[in-house]
Order: sequence, then structure tokens, then C-alpha cells
Amino acid sequence: MVILMGFGVLHSVQEAVSLLKRSGLRPKTIFIDLDESLGKISADTVISPEDVPPRDRSVLDGYAARWSDISMASENSPITLTLVGEVPIDKEDPGKIGPGETAKVATGSFIPEGANVVIPKEYVEVEDNKVKVFKAFAGGYGISVRGEDLKKGDIIIRKGYVIREWHLALLASLGLNRVKVYDSFKAAVFATGDELIEPGSPRRPGKVYVSTARLIVSWLKNRGIEARYFGIVPDDEVRIEKKFETLLNSYDIVISTGGTSVGERDLTAKVLKRISEDYVHGLALSPGKPAAFGIANGKILMALSGMPVAALSELIAVFDPYYRNILGRDEPWEPVLTAEMGRKYTSHPGFTNVVRSVLCQDNSKLKVYPLRVTGSGILSTLIKANSYFIVEEEITGIEEGEKISVRLINEKIERCKENVI
Amino acid sequence: MVILMGFGVLHSVQEAVSLLKRSGLRPKTIFIDLDESLGKISADTVISPEDVPPRDRSVLDGYAARWSDISMASENSPITLTLVGEVPIDKEDPGKIGPGETAKVATGSFIPEGANVVIPKEYVEVEDNKVKVFKAFAGGYGISVRGEDLKKGDIIIRKGYVIREWHLALLASLGLNRVKVYDSFKAAVFATGDELIEPGSPRRPGKVYVSTARLIVSWLKNRGIEARYFGIVPDDEVRIEKKFETLLNSYDIVISTGGTSVGERDLTAKVLKRISEDYVHGLALSPGKPAAFGIANGKILMALSGMPVAALSELIAVFDPYYRNILGRDEPWEPVLTAEMGRKYTSHPGFTNVVRSVLCQDNSKLKVYPLRVTGSGILSTLIKANSYFIVEEEITGIEEGEKISVRLINEKIERCKENVI
Repeated sequence: MVILMGFGVLHSVQEAVSLLKRSGLRPKTIFIDLDESLGKISADTVISPEDVPPRDRSVLDGYAARWSDISMASENSPITLTLVGEVPIDKEDPGKIGPGETAKVATGSFIPEGANVVIPKEYVEVEDNKVKVFKAFAGGYGISVRGEDLKKGDIIIRKGYVIREWHLALLASLGLNRVKVYDSFKAAVFATGDELIEPGSPRRPGKVYVSTARLIVSWLKNRGIEARYFGIVPDDEVRIEKKFETLLNSYDIVISTGGTSVGERDLTAKVLKRISEDYVHGLALSPGKPAAFGIANGKILMALSGMPVAALSELIAVFDPYYRNILGRDEPWEPVLTAEMGRKYTSHPGFTNVVRSVLCQDNSKLKVYPLRVTGSGILSTLIKANSYFIVEEEITGIEEGEKISVRLINEKIERCKENVI
Repeated sequence: MVILMGFGVLHSVQEAVSLLKRSGLRPKTIFIDLDESLGKISADTVISPEDVPPRDRSVLDGYAARWSDISMASENSPITLTLVGEVPIDKEDPGKIGPGETAKVATGSFIPEGANVVIPKEYVEVEDNKVKVFKAFAGGYGISVRGEDLKKGDIIIRKGYVIREWHLALLASLGLNRVKVYDSFKAAVFATGDELIEPGSPRRPGKVYVSTARLIVSWLKNRGIEARYFGIVPDDEVRIEKKFETLLNSYDIVISTGGTSVGERDLTAKVLKRISEDYVHGLALSPGKPAAFGIANGKILMALSGMPVAALSELIAVFDPYYRNILGRDEPWEPVLTAEMGRKYTSHPGFTNVVRSVLCQDNSKLKVYPLRVTGSGILSTLIKANSYFIVEEEITGIEEGEKISVRLINEKIERCKENVI
């Protein structure tokens, strides 16, 4: 624990995460139409209940045969097989064929026993019960083998993971038209601060456009939370308290930005202390020290920093571990890559550090450079950075050349250049 | 050009891309509320019109002073400054201070000339016009310097890029409450094939649940296109044609899946040929050979493969280059990483190859392994793969150890293991 004037004792991020877990707030699970599930978070680990396809089947219209019979066929010396039947796609028992024999199949038909190739219909000539084959095909051609796509027990999607296009298609291919997902948390976000004005209103000296609250709303939306922005509340304890109380009636999570630093305007933290059953204020987190977290009535209250980068750091270090935990998801949302530190990084000692960084490529090797400018008000570092990493409180620094795990937040990864970062 | 029985001449993917460009189909641009813009595609490259912040300003409530005056202050030997004024946040001219002087500032106040540090109010004691400072702070502390966040001319977001949380917050911080985005294309997707049934209906021999059309709808949705699924049309030329015609009345892009391979059920391609002003059928693309593309009345028609992986390959190789081109976006949607080939890859000669792959990490080095199983019907390879790469038609193969560009489609990147892939 670190003692600091003004805050008294600072709390570790783990304490704050534990507080949120103690709230008991958990998302409900609901069944929705498969066609509405893209981008939702799966509440189940879905496992293939059977082999897909369940039996060998044809993937084209043609003639099922034995590969050894037609392996020498060519345009100049076609091979003639005897047509012994046809397998319509709805036939449960495809029968069998012997040497020199063939059966007509359609896309989807089961493959007769003894056959191991399907010759596309455009490479044969049929006359009565004689089928002339003009081309050789490799064994297995035209056949989708039992279990080729999915084996019984294969994992389609894991609990806590976002349903992507391939998951949706695979769930469809199993015949599922309903899928169990987490119902979205409902979050309300408002900004506090006499200095704030809304974008679109005229510029005025000393006034600042509300951006941190919007950053938070957007971050939450991108993680499956139904978040809404509720405007600016002036620096007035009574009005802030009323806003929290009102929003708590209808929302699972209520978040304020600003008014958390120690000083005469340290109002949101004071309000949170008063209306919460349990409460944490002041984190050993850099950036993001002034945040306060409370729980009341099974709901979560957060008084985040007014500084955008600090507020994001508070969400990443405290809210996200709680959120992923209750979703049953252990891994971060972003791709995690191992990279070599491009230069030494000295950590804020005793603090958890959330460090914006630039991930770059030196050939096939990944390097990462922490951004030099780290002011918690400097929003543009979030577009200059393409990644971030977390340094746990017990770590004092990372040497140049050391390997660390970096989370990618932007699709742009450039070649490493000298002196650019 | 490659000649193949049945298809006649195969077209290069470039020919098909050019055809789509010739359609003249372009998305409209519209202005929308900033708060509705998350995830939309920016239709403008937005540049900061000014420095942000426009002038040096305080980021806390405290006292502006000269760093050299307070650099030796401590709890045991405080330093006393003379309070010469106050800068309210709405004051255009913050005045100036001399040596030994200080001015009270609030969060957002402009910094008086001569001051280069703001001492937080909780570290001072004020009596009349005397301010006792109990702690030293580094020069620049508490001050957000002009242009620190954005310099005039800095790029906030580029045309053709998806608006992420940080872009939205930065646009807000510039005072913008409207943003120019591309209006979504409207796409209709239907499936063809007598063998198809809808998920949720009972399993039947020879029948297959519709998944490819869902894969396509989801892929389009993830790229800002309003895509809708329109069910199954049987293998009946008249009904397929009617479906295309009806959907073309209301949609910019109409897509069928299935019925493109040469054979008695090669119906969608036939219909496309009949109703299109200009038309391409049969691509030198692996997987994805049987696709057909047409343009009619400034709209786009696509008859994609019924095989999911082939259909995706057709979208990636043909539709996506056209789509990114008209959006003004040169780079792929996914993160692109340079990796070393883990083993030799032999290309389908003369063909553009879209290759599913596993990207893995050998320490900080990236390696990529093409998936061995590449059947175009094997949907599960899309979850077993975490990446793909494109091999242009003029390339015949890639050697083990060669560096290639890989696109990441999944957040999971594991350590390279022997014999796993």
C-alpha cells in the first residue's frame, strides 16, 4: 500500500475488482434468433453434438465410382462403367457398388459403399446403363467425408466470446436457430464539471467539450454493453447525487466522469461514498489514481476520472477484469501478441501501470515501444498508439529486449523506424 | 488465362473487380450525430483545424506559479508566494505573474504568462494574499500545453476507416457533433439449392442447413453493409430469376449462394448472364472458381459458391477490393502482420489463392502455417485458422522461411507448437 496526502490509503486494483465482484451483478442469459446473434457474447460453450457431415456425402452432381477403376481415364481413352443405380439426396441407404460399377449421385447424396470418388457429370457421357468417363480424378474427389468439418465434441464457440461470422455459420450448419447469449448490461454515463460544454455548441474560453464520457460509452458499447450518455451535471453535490439516484433506478451500472480528484470539486467520490453500501476511492493505478467505485443494491457505481486516458485505464484495470470474470472469459478482448521491448520502461512503483504503446515489426519480429508522452489528458495518444500493455504493481520496470504481452487496439502495424516514436 | 472444360475461359480476379467498379455503384455520404457514429465508416479524412488545447490551460484546481520559485518547497520548509489574482475559467486574458507571485486557477483556466506549474490546492495553505506551498512539483505539472493533444493538421481519422471509441472522443473534443459517414449499402442474400433446409427444422437425409448465405450476410454486416437474408429458392431458373429481379428493385447488391458450378444445376450463373448488362463467370481463384458477377442498372449481382469457404474467398478477392476502393481505403480491414512461412506452400498455378492459416508466435517472432485441409466446404477451418493470406496469380509458391503478409481474423494467437497444425 502506498500512502499519499489527500487520498489517504490507495487501494490496489485487485481490491476494486473484488468490490465489483461482491456486487453480485451478473448479466442474464437469453436465447435469441441465430440471425440476430452476430457480435453478441455467447453465454455457452457450444460443442458439436455429432460429426458434420454425419456420413460421407457428395458435394457435386455426378457419378460415384471406385478410384482404382477410373485412375487411367482420359479424353483419348475413356473408361466405361456400368450404371447400377441412382442415389437421390433424400435416400437414407445409398446401397453399394462393385468394381466397374457406378451410381448417379447429386449434391448432398450419401455415397454408396465401395465408392471413393465422384466424377463430375460434365466429364462423362451416359448411354443407357453405360457411363463413359473422360478424366481421372484423385481418390476422395467430390466427397465430403464424415466428420470432415466437425468431429463430435469439437468446440464451435466458447462462453464469453463474441459471435463472429464463422461461428454463426457453423451454428447454422448444426441446425441451431437459437443461441444463448448474455443479455446486455444497461449502463448510464454522465459527465460532471462546470467547465464542460457539448460538442456543437460555440467555443468559449475555459470551456472544454465533453469527450471522456463519450469515450467510456463507446468502449462499453464495443464490449456488448448497452451504454447511453446522459449529459453534463454541474459541480453541485446535490444534483450529482440526484443524478446517480435517478439513473440507478433504471440502469445496472451508473458512471460519472470528472470530479474525482482531491479538491473542492471532489464531488462525485463524496456522493459515491454516501450512497454506496461498500466503496473504494483512490487506486494505485497509473494513470487512473482518482477513481471511486461503489456498490449499492446489487448495482455498480463508478466515479471515473475526467481525463480520458485515465478513465480508460480505470475501465481496463478494474471494470474489465470483473466483467470478463462474470462472463466466464479469461482472455482479453483484443489480440495479444508477444513483443520485445524496444526500450527500457520504468514503472510507477507500487502502482499498476496501463501503458499505451506502439507495436511495430522488425521483419517477422515484433517490437514494442511505450509512448513517451503519457499525460492522462492526451486523448490523441490513443490514436498514435496501436496497442497497450499492463505492468502489474509488483514489477518495477522492464528492460530493453525483454519479452512482454501486448494488446493490439488498432489494425495498423508499421515497420519499426528509428527515432519515430 | 487458364482454359478449363465447362467454364471455357477463366477470368482473373482483377477482371471481376474491374467489372464491379464499372457498375458505378458508390455509397452515398451522410452526416449523422457523433453519438451514433461508433462503428460507422468515416467518409472524410478529418484533420484538426487548430491546436488542442488552443492555449496552455490548467488541468486542476490550484495555484499557477513559477517552477523555479517552488522547486525547493517541502512539508517542513514551505515556500510562501504572493497571491496576485485569480483566473476564472471563462477569462480570455489570464494576465501574468512575476517572480514570487501566484494566481489561483481552476480546471480549464488559461495559464497566466510567466507561470509554468500549477500547484494542486490541497498542497497549499492560503491566508489573505499569502499562499504557502508544501510540496515541490516538476515544471509543467498541472498544465496542458497548447497543441499537446493535437497539433493543427493532425489526422484524427482517415476516410474509409471505422470510427472507433478514440476517434469519436477526439472528434467530440474538437467540438464536432456531426460526422460525415458512408451510408450503408443495402444487400440482399438468398440461398439456392433443393438440398437446403433452414436451421431449426428437423434433420433429414441429404438435406443441409443453410450456412453459407449466413456467413455472407454476417461478413457484409461486419463491414458496414446492411445485409439481410432472404431464404431459400429451389433449383428453378424462373424462380431464381424472379427473386433476383424483385430484390434488385430495393437493394444495391443482390447475392445468391449455390448453383454456380457447371452442371444441370448451374442456374444462378445462367440467370445472372441473362439479366446483367455485363458479366463475368468463372474465376482463376482458389477456392472460389465458380462465382459469377454481373452489373445491371448501376447495381451489383453476385452468384457466389454454395461452399462457405469458397464464397468467403470470392468476397475477399473480388468484392472487397472494389468496396475498399470506392470507400477510399487502401488497407485491409484486419490487422496485417509480417510472418515467416513455417512450411513451403505450393500455389494453384495461374490462380489467385486465398489461404487460411495459423499465425503463431515463436518468442517475439511470428510464423505462419497454411492449413493443410483446404476443402472449400470445410467451414470449421475458419475457426481453426486465425488468419489468412492471399497469393497473387503470378506467384507459384512460397518457400519455408520466406516473409509474407498475413491478415489476422481472430484474437487468439498461440505459441508455435510442433506438429499441431
